[in-house]
Amino acid sequence: MPKRHVYLHMKSLEEAQGLFFSAFNFDGYLKTETVPTTEALNRVTAKPIFARFSSPAFHCAAMDGYAVDARLTFGASLERPKELLVNKEVFAVNTGYPLPENTNAVIMIEDVVEDKDRIIIRKAVYPWQNVRKVGEDIVATELVLPPCHCVTPYDIGALLEGGIFEIEVKQRPKVVIIPTGNEIVPIEKVPPQGLKKGEVVESNSWMLRALLAQYGAICEKWPVVPDDYDLIKQTILKAASSDAHIVVILAGSSAGSKDYTASALEELGEVLVHGVSIMPGKPTILAKVNHKPVIGNPGYPVSAAISFEQFVRPLISKMLGIVFENPRKVKVFPARPLPSKLGIEEFLRVKLGRVGDKIVATPLPRAAGAITTLTKAHGVIRIPKQSEGINEDEEVEAELLVPEEEILNTIVIIGSHDLTIDLLASELKKKSPFLNISASNVGSLGGLMAIKKGKAHLAGSHLFDPETGVYNLTYIDRYLKDVSVKVVNLVIRHQGLIVPKGNPKGIKGIRDLTRSDITMVNRQQGAGTRILLDYKLKQLGINPEIINGYEHEEFSHMAVAVDVLSGRADVGLGIYAAARALGLDFIPIAVEEYDLIIAERFWEDSKIETILEVINSKAFKEKVLEMGGYDVSKTGTIKR
Amino acid sequence: MPKRHVYLHMKSLEEAQGLFFSAFNFDGYLKTETVPTTEALNRVTAKPIFARFSSPAFHCAAMDGYAVDARLTFGASLERPKELLVNKEVFAVNTGYPLPENTNAVIMIEDVVEDKDRIIIRKAVYPWQNVRKVGEDIVATELVLPPCHCVTPYDIGALLEGGIFEIEVKQRPKVVIIPTGNEIVPIEKVPPQGLKKGEVVESNSWMLRALLAQYGAICEKWPVVPDDYDLIKQTILKAASSDAHIVVILAGSSAGSKDYTASALEELGEVLVHGVSIMPGKPTILAKVNHKPVIGNPGYPVSAAISFEQFVRPLISKMLGIVFENPRKVKVFPARPLPSKLGIEEFLRVKLGRVGDKIVATPLPRAAGAITTLTKAHGVIRIPKQSEGINEDEEVEAELLVPEEEILNTIVIIGSHDLTIDLLASELKKKSPFLNISASNVGSLGGLMAIKKGKAHLAGSHLFDPETGVYNLTYIDRYLKDVSVKVVNLVIRHQGLIVPKGNPKGIKGIRDLTRSDITMVNRQQGAGTRILLDYKLKQLGINPEIINGYEHEEFSHMAVAVDVLSGRADVGLGIYAAARALGLDFIPIAVEEYDLIIAERFWEDSKIETILEVINSKAFKEKVLEMGGYDVSKTGTIKR
Repeated sequence: MPKRHVYLHMKSLEEAQGLFFSAFNFDGYLKTETVPTTEALNRVTAKPIFARFSSPAFHCAAMDGYAVDARLTFGASLERPKELLVNKEVFAVNTGYPLPENTNAVIMIEDVVEDKDRIIIRKAVYPWQNVRKVGEDIVATELVLPPCHCVTPYDIGALLEGGIFEIEVKQRPKVVIIPTGNEIVPIEKVPPQGLKKGEVVESNSWMLRALLAQYGAICEKWPVVPDDYDLIKQTILKAASSDAHIVVILAGSSAGSKDYTASALEELGEVLVHGVSIMPGKPTILAKVNHKPVIGNPGYPVSAAISFEQFVRPLISKMLGIVFENPRKVKVFPARPLPSKLGIEEFLRVKLGRVGDKIVATPLPRAAGAITTLTKAHGVIRIPKQSEGINEDEEVEAELLVPEEEILNTIVIIGSHDLTIDLLASELKKKSPFLNISASNVGSLGGLMAIKKGKAHLAGSHLFDPETGVYNLTYIDRYLKDVSVKVVNLVIRHQGLIVPKGNPKGIKGIRDLTRSDITMVNRQQGAGTRILLDYKLKQLGINPEIINGYEHEEFSHMAVAVDVLSGRADVGLGIYAAARALGLDFIPIAVEEYDLIIAERFWEDSKIETILEVINSKAFKEKVLEMGGYDVSKTGTIKR
Repeated sequence: MPKRHVYLHMKSLEEAQGLFFSAFNFDGYLKTETVPTTEALNRVTAKPIFARFSSPAFHCAAMDGYAVDARLTFGASLERPKELLVNKEVFAVNTGYPLPENTNAVIMIEDVVEDKDRIIIRKAVYPWQNVRKVGEDIVATELVLPPCHCVTPYDIGALLEGGIFEIEVKQRPKVVIIPTGNEIVPIEKVPPQGLKKGEVVESNSWMLRALLAQYGAICEKWPVVPDDYDLIKQTILKAASSDAHIVVILAGSSAGSKDYTASALEELGEVLVHGVSIMPGKPTILAKVNHKPVIGNPGYPVSAAISFEQFVRPLISKMLGIVFENPRKVKVFPARPLPSKLGIEEFLRVKLGRVGDKIVATPLPRAAGAITTLTKAHGVIRIPKQSEGINEDEEVEAELLVPEEEILNTIVIIGSHDLTIDLLASELKKKSPFLNISASNVGSLGGLMAIKKGKAHLAGSHLFDPETGVYNLTYIDRYLKDVSVKVVNLVIRHQGLIVPKGNPKGIKGIRDLTRSDITMVNRQQGAGTRILLDYKLKQLGINPEIINGYEHEEFSHMAVAVDVLSGRADVGLGIYAAARALGLDFIPIAVEEYDLIIAERFWEDSKIETILEVINSKAFKEKVLEMGGYDVSKTGTIKR
């Protein structure tokens, strides 16, 4: 029976890579095979390749014109033109034509006056002028490609010119992926209505298969193995005894009772590393079975991807004997302080956008289970093991996950959360596919601060001033004294109480929050919704301290709605669209103005102009109305 | 009949791109198709994609441990541990397991002492601690991917988690490539012994096909069309009437009499641009036929590639609605001044290597016909239209063609040319596949100057001092006063007269160079071979002025040998290996020491250590001897 593993001997990333990669001899690890040159793109040469033919294989015209023995042209000048007889002394040739016998130069067509059977020239040519000589590009027997070279499109051209129509390349590394777990359901077995509770779609193996395609490796995905120790052990052994070059076992690498991988690997071979001090990716197992690298890949999708990139990708590069390009790096400023755990190297996913001369990095959620933190990320900030995090004004490096151009095309919106921002992003993408939005939810006041610090193009805000009854403008006067801004209304929206379907606890209004059988979920300090709630409570003379759950804060409308859906809370204040998205009930409380605050220096930026066009478009307004709970009567209005 | 076109209306690159791209409406140009998500890597979304399932679809354990109603744990502390009954109050769960009924938190396994039917805890958990709630990653109906998004491996994971098993993507753009020309022979028709004079292997179409694969487009390569005006015209019309999205006609775009493409395009549709002021790539034709972009691609391979990258690549990016990543750029110093023609934007191929804190760019030959100038290049320097070139000390940008790491792994050798340097590069690649050599031939003295200026790691030199009879050392004393260097012998080699096979003019020695029926080819000033020749002439009391061809200079042994092979010269001084490579005869004249001069600051650089190991290896020496004309008795000896 398997032992229960705890990470007593966790290794740093560098230690783990060192231990793992040095355990194998990659020299000749891959066999070679012969492929047609025309199909050799991205394959890796196994041997030096020498040319069979010279190119050009004959002296040929480098220009369109007339081939000639250069001596016949000597003496020609503007004052003393020379006449030469066509097909006797000179011969019409096009670029690439072989030089006729007894000629050694080409007179360019531009330098010739053609006159029936003769041409007139006013300039001499010297021997071999405008001629491409034999072997000028490639000399037969010359090295065309060295070994361990990844074949490019240009190489294909050069090889064919050199008469090399097939080449010997290294095999593509073959990686066997073994998904394990009783809960994993292959996609073809997922019923249309969805899975049963406890079941999970098989997705990691497909993601890793796509990564392997990028690395130039072959993926053999084996069927899901249930949580059965002997079966798992047998399957690993079978894979390690197959023609696979690398074996990857999915999940089964954390320290749970069903995690048989480490025990099986210990029995079958040698576990080199169990646990790496990276986050995500900690529960990685690195082993050697039958002289082959075997990897226990963690179950959470982000952990799976990062572990794979840190261990499988370099393994493939070493087998092929080529250098994979490292991710591009850019210098960024964090949108807010980024604390991190000492002793762990963290791979923090961030959104990036260029605001003025700064690239601003907004962290995405850290959850290793949330694959969307990778799909939405523009880059990754690696926070070193010895660091406790990054200060707000500390410039750090981010590894790019997207082309750098995408960052230049990113509109950074920081502030209050509203679902119409997602809609705006989607409509913007339709109008101008190259632009994208990086939106971070830090509440309305946080948005104003981001504008002040030059860290955002736009801030979404719905700050109600109880004294004047005005939204946003009085706050701007107070907090953005030194920054010129424009204010554009995005939507007017209904705020209300989000309650479970059917409103089982019969909640009617704000007063019900004080009931002892009711637990609420709140929004964070500085959020416009929080200010609205506090205002309403004050109006009603309610002391927030008596409300269950008042101290429990979430950072978005959807998070509040999810809390209600999940039963974590009975009620929360939020927008109608969030309630509707999750099929929850909604009790309207107030109507408020949600505005975009725009730093004036970006007002004429074409990105901002485009986004304003989208806001003013009929299509956007119609889609906002379809969501319900919104009014677009002021949408697009420049309030200041 | 076709007219003869001259480039009267040549456009700049920007003008040409502007005219061409604005002539088409790319909105909806590509149809859409449905593909399985698992096969959607690198495809481009046609529409926004919304999640069907939430992920997680149920509350589940975020850790291995025991699920519990958090309230049961309240009050537990180090001093007052609590006991909880397994399978009544607490339930063992692994990461990802659904929470059992009436539980709302997970106690981590690490915080538990297990004792038969109960567990002991010393710390409370709060509600929803260590729980992943429904929709924490993906909420059903939420946007997973926007339109015009290129699908990544992570996206595949996210889509499958969100229950999206197939997606609507844009068709891959289909590009029809039509090779033309009587001289073009498809590879399957090339006889083993090679082509007839005047014939050329069909290679451009395969190179462009591989580029299209990189762009995510489909290539339909049509058979070679002979030079027949009506046939070419018919074929273009057929292609433009097919389901192709782009039509590319190869060659046929220069101004020769057989260049029917422009005329045919004028008759069939509209020629937007004929001639672009770029080098290589000038004879590009951009046209519109049947509302489709049709491109006349130049015949020289480098022109073909550059024109394709400037016009076809952006076309595909616009059709797909995505941003292709621009090439990475680095700042470089030229190894020597790089003059360029005013009025033309030049794409100069360069080798790059990092020497100390500088990246040094050594230009490759400019010939548009030489595909090897692309295969050997590490980058491209774009010299603007308004520039006459780049000064030696001018820092400029180079676009990278290889991963930046490859530049760090490049050993820069500048100096005299010897074929054993190619062998060294090949042997080095075998020993250490990640290292490569960038060798430039500027003659021995040029090599010493490069060391002096910090632009080379190593210089190859064979400078003979007639006064002392010593190679290199006296020159180093004279020219490298301020730089500490090491001197290592690479080979002792035979220099001699290279003459055509069978020595038809009966050349016996240096004296024959003065014969009036003999034309020689010389090496450039500063080349060791040139110094040797001048020394021999002086010894014999011969005035160089009476030698035919003495003023005609080439920059390498192979160039000299090619001149002899091609009949351009009857004789040239060079090394045996060059003569042998081209099957020429060789008359030995002298034995000389070819040394590597190494800046001492790089002496302990691991790259240099590796290359010295290769030089000292048995394999290298054996291969040198196999080439003939070399002596390895001093190879690897540190002379200073």
